[in-house]
Amino acid sequence: MASQKRQMRLGAFIMATGHHIAAWRHPDAQADAGLNIDHYRDLVQTAERGKFDLVFVADSPAGWERAKDPEALRRTAQGAHFEPVTLWAALSQVTSRIGFVATASTTYEDPYLLARKFASLDYISKGRAAWNVVTTGADVSKNFSIPGHPAHADRYARAEEFVDLVKGLWDSYEDDAFIRDKESGVYLDPDKVHQLDHKGQFFSVSGPLNVGRPVQGYPVIVQAGASEAGRELAARTAEMIFTANQTLEDAQEFYSDVKGRLARYGRSPDELLISPGIFPVLGGTEAEAKANYDYIQSLVHPSVAWNILSRHYKGVDLSAYSLDDPAPPLPDSTELNKSRLKLVTDLVSRNNMTLREFYLAVATARGHRTVVGTPEQVADAMQKWFDNGAADAFNIMPPILPTGLTDFVDQVVPILRKRGLFREEYEGATLRENLGLRRPPNGLALKAQQGEAARAAG
Amino acid sequence: MASQKRQMRLGAFIMATGHHIAAWRHPDAQADAGLNIDHYRDLVQTAERGKFDLVFVADSPAGWERAKDPEALRRTAQGAHFEPVTLWAALSQVTSRIGFVATASTTYEDPYLLARKFASLDYISKGRAAWNVVTTGADVSKNFSIPGHPAHADRYARAEEFVDLVKGLWDSYEDDAFIRDKESGVYLDPDKVHQLDHKGQFFSVSGPLNVGRPVQGYPVIVQAGASEAGRELAARTAEMIFTANQTLEDAQEFYSDVKGRLARYGRSPDELLISPGIFPVLGGTEAEAKANYDYIQSLVHPSVAWNILSRHYKGVDLSAYSLDDPAPPLPDSTELNKSRLKLVTDLVSRNNMTLREFYLAVATARGHRTVVGTPEQVADAMQKWFDNGAADAFNIMPPILPTGLTDFVDQVVPILRKRGLFREEYEGATLRENLGLRRPPNGLALKAQQGEAARAAG
Repeated sequence: MASQKRQMRLGAFIMATGHHIAAWRHPDAQADAGLNIDHYRDLVQTAERGKFDLVFVADSPAGWERAKDPEALRRTAQGAHFEPVTLWAALSQVTSRIGFVATASTTYEDPYLLARKFASLDYISKGRAAWNVVTTGADVSKNFSIPGHPAHADRYARAEEFVDLVKGLWDSYEDDAFIRDKESGVYLDPDKVHQLDHKGQFFSVSGPLNVGRPVQGYPVIVQAGASEAGRELAARTAEMIFTANQTLEDAQEFYSDVKGRLARYGRSPDELLISPGIFPVLGGTEAEAKANYDYIQSLVHPSVAWNILSRHYKGVDLSAYSLDDPAPPLPDSTELNKSRLKLVTDLVSRNNMTLREFYLAVATARGHRTVVGTPEQVADAMQKWFDNGAADAFNIMPPILPTGLTDFVDQVVPILRKRGLFREEYEGATLRENLGLRRPPNGLALKAQQGEAARAAG
Repeated sequence: MASQKRQMRLGAFIMATGHHIAAWRHPDAQADAGLNIDHYRDLVQTAERGKFDLVFVADSPAGWERAKDPEALRRTAQGAHFEPVTLWAALSQVTSRIGFVATASTTYEDPYLLARKFASLDYISKGRAAWNVVTTGADVSKNFSIPGHPAHADRYARAEEFVDLVKGLWDSYEDDAFIRDKESGVYLDPDKVHQLDHKGQFFSVSGPLNVGRPVQGYPVIVQAGASEAGRELAARTAEMIFTANQTLEDAQEFYSDVKGRLARYGRSPDELLISPGIFPVLGGTEAEAKANYDYIQSLVHPSVAWNILSRHYKGVDLSAYSLDDPAPPLPDSTELNKSRLKLVTDLVSRNNMTLREFYLAVATARGHRTVVGTPEQVADAMQKWFDNGAADAFNIMPPILPTGLTDFVDQVVPILRKRGLFREEYEGATLRENLGLRRPPNGLALKAQQGEAARAAG
């Protein structure tokens, strides 16, 4: 086979009715999407038809908030949706190649139960599971019988221990621990079952896990933090990062910064794939795309608009402003995390926005990159970042579902393929194989071998 | 329609390679069953072909134990298997009517996350989820960063609070909370979203849950405890009990005792279905069935046999015994829970067993009822209990899988059907409908209405 161009990876970042805040009002949208399994099945099968590497859902273990502005809340499609791991377990049975990235929190979940459900998902899907490791930025402690939300630094310290511990549990069984010889009656080799006996700052967990070593060794580890601690955790443990950048320069800075951190953990740059989000608004012509964009934006109800603004301008009195006044500077303290805040602050100052322009910019994709144009223009925008050290992959964030994904698969994917940037067929059977990531060795088996070698030498 | 005989319910209690301890060695067995999703898919589709009400897996959040007798452990098929909720979520997509009973622990799981995954499973399966509430008898605290295993009374107190709390979370949304009117832009009615604000002895959980009210209102609540506390918890909260009884008299005692407790909770006897386990060993003739039974029993390796005995005779020195000596009286303290201990003690004393007969009796189905015979004889054994106040349903525990289930569906189910005891076709779409259980009202909605009525009156 002739040598191939470097290949782009694609993920479908699925949000029930679509990523636009008013998506559910669009005629194409499935308004009850959040709890409609047939809708999700169709989406995942569409993504697999397009040979996407993966589908992904975000998550937080908390529901609807009875906040100050009920008028805005009653107009927002939120609060009721599937739990990610059960959702992907289900849809693994009606697909055969696409990978499944489920978000789960190291702050609010238990490591033994989490290790177990992801290992189970990896077997159920025959090697297509991935875990998006999040520390949960929002305070949801009220649902978990604990006094309060841990501080940022504590969450990251806990996350680091949590991920190591979960990997250790996944190493409980060596791949050839099971002998299963009916004749002799020997089922397994006890020397190939390892007990982790982890005792750390946050957890004491002995193991072994009650699932075999996952098909992929470990499910693929994904991370999305952009803070200093988040970048460092990713460099140490992640194999894919979901990121949000608006400009090529910011994306390049993030890309080279994170890739540059890998060496200190003995890792090479290709062991971590960087995947910015992109919110593509398509049209047959540029004018049509623009009209589609304006139409979705027109669906944002004024009370929802003001609610978006008040969440960004926490503590600022906006009552004297109209939507067409210039946006005042953002306060330091908002409900956003720091890296997302910087993104939004830069957006406002870069563009001298009015309040209307500001909420419209945020209504689309919460700080992710918006591209409005023809399929060729969207492919161009992606290739530019891919060819210029800003991206290995993209998380496609369809404005409206299901049509936003179907259109991308039917219109943009063929262009990427024609340019030799994207696969015609899946390369492998597991998500790791398709992403070009190696299957990690068993850490507990290595440790046991080293212990034995040391004893033999001593 | 003519009035119909009272109908028997059937569950398939699935244990990877089969319920017999040496099942995996049988030529018909799938030796890697525990993590083989295709094997489970075939089993569940077979059970649905037989119009079973449900499939069920037991569970404990712990793995393989490096115990005193590694020789026995290396010969036992255990330790590596699917997590129940992910397994059933997956298999809900390749079936349409059968119900899914997943076991989950109130001692080791978190109520918000548990409420959420079962609600998600209920939507994914379109109303076919059930939760087998267990308090986890075995000490698995070493996997959960806690100092030790809670005592029996504490586990049951916690279970009671846990179940109430989970039901409260399932009531977060009223059925008609979602308006989803694209024209007006109103997505939901905030007055129909309820915050539980639970503060109890063990938990403080505010809610609301981030899943809509489950399709069935609540997933069906199943329980399996046979202790005094277990019976009381079942009478208060369960809609089905899985039980283990050896004799008609014991089963009748259990049946009438538990049904008799319902009235004090304002419940009627038909709101709780009682389902003993049955381990059927089939053959074309009685002699063939007996030969099949003897063959499976011959697969138990002597080291596994002695390990079974030593677990029952904890602290007793059996080294002077041979397998053909009469079984000495069992000690009070074993690894078994009290109700299972009584079952086994009665078994030994009733039958004047040798140690060999004892381990063989336990090797089959761990204290559940064993029936060896022709399909007619097995149907007779079931009907006798069903007609005489000992059972509403049965949990079929196939000795070997997949053949033990296929044979039951092909040979015994037609006989039950011919006798008018079992359905030709599913009655409904949800598990509740098939079991004849009502959809429970929304407790938080009722409370809110009462509060409003009181305010209006005051």
